[in-house]
Amino acid sequence: MKRLLLNCDIGESFGAWTMGLDAEVMPFIDCANVACGFHASDPQIMRRTVALATQHQVMIGAHPAYPDLTGFGRRSMACSPDEVENMLLYQLGALEGICRAEGTEVSYVKPHGALYNDMMRKPELLRAVMNAVIGYSPTLPLMLMATRDNSAAQSLADELGVMLWFEVFADRAYDPDGRLVSRDQPGAVHHDTEKVAAQALSLARGEAIGANDGSLLRLHADTLCVHGDNAGAVAAVQRIRQALEHLAE
Amino acid sequence: MKRLLLNCDIGESFGAWTMGLDAEVMPFIDCANVACGFHASDPQIMRRTVALATQHQVMIGAHPAYPDLTGFGRRSMACSPDEVENMLLYQLGALEGICRAEGTEVSYVKPHGALYNDMMRKPELLRAVMNAVIGYSPTLPLMLMATRDNSAAQSLADELGVMLWFEVFADRAYDPDGRLVSRDQPGAVHHDTEKVAAQALSLARGEAIGANDGSLLRLHADTLCVHGDNAGAVAAVQRIRQALEHLAE
Amino acid sequence: MKRLLLNCDIGESFGAWTMGLDAEVMPFIDCANVACGFHASDPQIMRRTVALATQHQVMIGAHPAYPDLTGFGRRSMACSPDEVENMLLYQLGALEGICRAEGTEVSYVKPHGALYNDMMRKPELLRAVMNAVIGYSPTLPLMLMATRDNSAAQSLADELGVMLWFEVFADRAYDPDGRLVSRDQPGAVHHDTEKVAAQALSLARGEAIGANDGSLLRLHADTLCVHGDNAGAVAAVQRIRQALEHLAE
Amino acid sequence: MKRLLLNCDIGESFGAWTMGLDAEVMPFIDCANVACGFHASDPQIMRRTVALATQHQVMIGAHPAYPDLTGFGRRSMACSPDEVENMLLYQLGALEGICRAEGTEVSYVKPHGALYNDMMRKPELLRAVMNAVIGYSPTLPLMLMATRDNSAAQSLADELGVMLWFEVFADRAYDPDGRLVSRDQPGAVHHDTEKVAAQALSLARGEAIGANDGSLLRLHADTLCVHGDNAGAVAAVQRIRQALEHLAE
Repeated sequence: MKRLLLNCDIGESFGAWTMGLDAEVMPFIDCANVACGFHASDPQIMRRTVALATQHQVMIGAHPAYPDLTGFGRRSMACSPDEVENMLLYQLGALEGICRAEGTEVSYVKPHGALYNDMMRKPELLRAVMNAVIGYSPTLPLMLMATRDNSAAQSLADELGVMLWFEVFADRAYDPDGRLVSRDQPGAVHHDTEKVAAQALSLARGEAIGANDGSLLRLHADTLCVHGDNAGAVAAVQRIRQALEHLAE
Repeated sequence: MKRLLLNCDIGESFGAWTMGLDAEVMPFIDCANVACGFHASDPQIMRRTVALATQHQVMIGAHPAYPDLTGFGRRSMACSPDEVENMLLYQLGALEGICRAEGTEVSYVKPHGALYNDMMRKPELLRAVMNAVIGYSPTLPLMLMATRDNSAAQSLADELGVMLWFEVFADRAYDPDGRLVSRDQPGAVHHDTEKVAAQALSLARGEAIGANDGSLLRLHADTLCVHGDNAGAVAAVQRIRQALEHLAE
Repeated sequence: MKRLLLNCDIGESFGAWTMGLDAEVMPFIDCANVACGFHASDPQIMRRTVALATQHQVMIGAHPAYPDLTGFGRRSMACSPDEVENMLLYQLGALEGICRAEGTEVSYVKPHGALYNDMMRKPELLRAVMNAVIGYSPTLPLMLMATRDNSAAQSLADELGVMLWFEVFADRAYDPDGRLVSRDQPGAVHHDTEKVAAQALSLARGEAIGANDGSLLRLHADTLCVHGDNAGAVAAVQRIRQALEHLAE
Repeated sequence: MKRLLLNCDIGESFGAWTMGLDAEVMPFIDCANVACGFHASDPQIMRRTVALATQHQVMIGAHPAYPDLTGFGRRSMACSPDEVENMLLYQLGALEGICRAEGTEVSYVKPHGALYNDMMRKPELLRAVMNAVIGYSPTLPLMLMATRDNSAAQSLADELGVMLWFEVFADRAYDPDGRLVSRDQPGAVHHDTEKVAAQALSLARGEAIGANDGSLLRLHADTLCVHGDNAGAVAAVQRIRQALEHLAE
C-alpha cells in the first residue's frame, strides 16, 4: 500500500511577525508547503524554513499565492491565466533559489488559498497553473484537491504532461461531489481528534467515507492536508501520523 | 583579444508603466541585466523580457536590488549581510523560474543601484553577494566595478570560488583610484558620442585612459555598461558596437 | 444651466515611472482624480500633483483603488465591505494629508478601476464606499456612473446622507440601460473628436443621446470623464472644453 | 506637577499576523503610537486600533515609518528630506482618515524605529519631520527623545513653530549625554520592575538620574515610553502607572 503523505502549510511567518508552530509540526509531516513571499514569508524566513525542512528530511513544496500579503492570499484576484502562470514561475524559482543555497530543491507545487480555490473552479486557471509547473520542470507534481470525479483535471494533466498528487482532508466533511462542506455549515469541521484520525485511516486505506448527505464517497488520495497552527493541531498531526504508521506495519 | 561584452539594464518597466527602449537596444548588446521585481519589473514583464533577450541571443543576467519599488532600488537600506544574501537568492531564483519556461537560464549576476554601490563600499556586503552567487551556482559570474586596484574583491572571490566580470564605463569620467566621478561634478558624464566610443575602444584594447586629475588609469575590463533609456543612448550603443566590431576584425 | 465638470485621472505616475500628460491636460479640466498610492502614485508624486492642481485651481478628488500596483487597480479583488470602507478612509486621509501641506483639501471621491466597476455592480460595496465617504466628511460628493435608472444608488445615498455626482462619457457608446458598451465590441469607443464633442454637448444640454440599439437614452450628468494619457486625448479635452464654453455663453 | 504621559507602540499587527497585547496594555497608557501601514498595520487593523484607543480615552498618535514592512521599519533607508516629509504627511493623513470614521483625531506624532533614530542623528531629517508636522497642523506635538541638551531640536522647533514632547525611558540606561546605552552593552536594559518604576518616578519628579558613568543626568520629560509586547511588559506598565498615580495624589 502506498504511503499517504502528510502535507502542511509551513513558513507563513513574515518579517517581525510569527505564525505557526513550524518546528513542532515538522517532525511529523512528509511535505512542507513553503510560502514564497506573495501571501506570507520573506527571503530570511524562507531560508530558515528550508533549513528546518531539510534537517527533518521533509520534502519542500512551493506554496505560491496571489500577490496579497495584507489579505494572506485569501482574497480572489481577477488575474489572467498568463499572470497566474508567470507569478507561479516567479515564486517557484524564488523558493528554488533559496533551496539551492541549502543544498536541496523544490519537490512539488501546491497553490495557496484563493489561488487554490480558483484553480479548482476555473479550467483556464488550472491550465495556467499546469503550464507553469511543466514549464518549470517536467517532473514536478502538482497537488490539487481530490473530488469524486477527477477526470477533467486528470485529462488536462495528461495533455500537458503534469503529474498530479490528489489531496484529501481528514478534518473536514465532504459533500456528495467530494467538495469540502463550507466552513459556515454545521459539522463542516471535525474537532474530535479520534474522528479525524479515523477519517485519515479510511482515506489511507482507500475506503469510502460518508458524505454529508449520508452517501458513500471514494476519493483518490495521495496526500493528506494537516495543520500546524496551534498546539491542538500539532497534537492531531501526531495522532494521525501514529494511526498511519500502525497501518503501514 | 577577448571581446568586451556590452551589458545594459533591461526589463525595468513595471505593471502599467513603461521604461527603456528594450526592443531597440537589444540587438546591439551582449548581456541583459534583467530586473527581478524588487526595484522594477513583475513576472509578466520578466517573461516578455526574457523572451526578447532569448530571441536576440543575448545573455540573461539577474539584476537584483533592495526591495524598494518606490525608490527604484536607488536608496541604500541598512540590510544585514544575511538579508542581502537571501534577497539575492530569491531574486536569482525568481528570474531563473521565468527563464526555464522560455528554455533558457540565468548566466551572470549584476546587483542594481544602491545595492551595487553598497557592495563596492562594504566588504561584508560583497561577501554576502558572493555567498549568494556561489550558493546559487558554482559557475555564475558576478559583475562588479573595475577600479585601479581590484585585489580585495579578487581575493575574496578566490576564497569563495566566485568568477568575476569587471565592468567599465565609456560615458563616465574616472578619478585616479578608478572610481566614477560623481555626477554632480563638472565633466562627470561624457555626452559626446565620439568621446564615448573612443573611451570604449581604449578600454577594449586594454589601454590606459586619462583620469580626471590627468593621471593615467588602466582598468581590467570584461564588460562595458551601456544604456537603453532613450534614443540618444541607443544610438551611442550602436556607435560603440560598431567601433568594437571594427576593432575585432 | 449647470456647468458640466470635466474630470480626469491625474497623478498616475509611480516612483521612477511616468504616466500621463498631467501638466498639459490640467489647464482644461475642473476636477483632478488624484491617485492615492494603492494603484499608482506615491507621496512624492502626490505632493507634486496636488501642487499642480492647486496652481491651476482644479478641484482635487481622491481616486482610491484596490491595493494592486502591479495590476494598476484594474484587477477585481474579493475584498469585504469593511475592507473596502477602511481602505478608502486610509487613501482619502492620505491624500488630504498631502493637500494640507499645500493649503488645500480633498473635494470629492471617485473610486478607480476595478473598485469603481465593483461598486457599480455590488450594492454592498457601494454601501461600503458611501460609508467611507460619509464617515470621512458629511459634505464630500461621490462620483459614480450615471445609468438610465440611478434610483437604487440615489436612495442608498439619501439614506446615508451622501451627495452624488453622476459621471458620463463622451467618447464611449452606451447600451439602452445606460451602461458603457464593452471595449471589445465594435463601435464601443468614439475616436472622432467631433463626435466626442457632439456627445459631450448633448450630455451637457441634458438631451438624450442614441444608445447602441438605436433607442434614446437620457442621462443625469454632473461631470464628464476625460483623459490625459496622450497628445490626442489632450486635444480632445481642449475641443470638449471649447464646445462647453461656447454653450455656457 | 505636570503628569508624565505614558506612550506605547500600538496597532503593530499586520494582515493575518498578530503582535502586541494591545487590549491588555491600553487601560494603563495615555498615548497610543498607532502604526500607519508602512512598517506595520493595515486599514482594517488601524480601524480596530483607533476604536480600542477611543474606547479607553487614550490619545491617538501617528507612528509613521519608512516604507519597509519586511524590516518592520527598523532598517535605515537613504530617503531625502522631501521624501521623509511627504511620507509623513501621507501616513498622518491616512491615520486621520481612519480616526474621522471613529469620531476622533490624531493628537501627536512619534516617528518609528529607524526613522526616529535617523531624525535624532540628522538635522535635515528632523527639519523634514517638523515640516511635515507643521504642514499638517499647527497644533500637533512631535514626540522626540530627550537628551541632556535639547537646545538644537528646540530652536529648530521654535523656528518652525512645532510643539515638542520630550520622551524618556524608564527601562533603559543612559549615557552622560542623555543617549540610550546601546542594547548590546551590559546593563543597557533594566529588567527589574522596581528599578524601572523607580526610574520612572525620578523622571516624573524632575529629579536627576544616574548615567552609566556615574554622573547625574537631568532630562526634560513630557512622556515616558512603555511597552505592550508581552505579559511582563504589561505588568511593568501597570506598576509604573501605579507609582505615578501615587505621586500625583
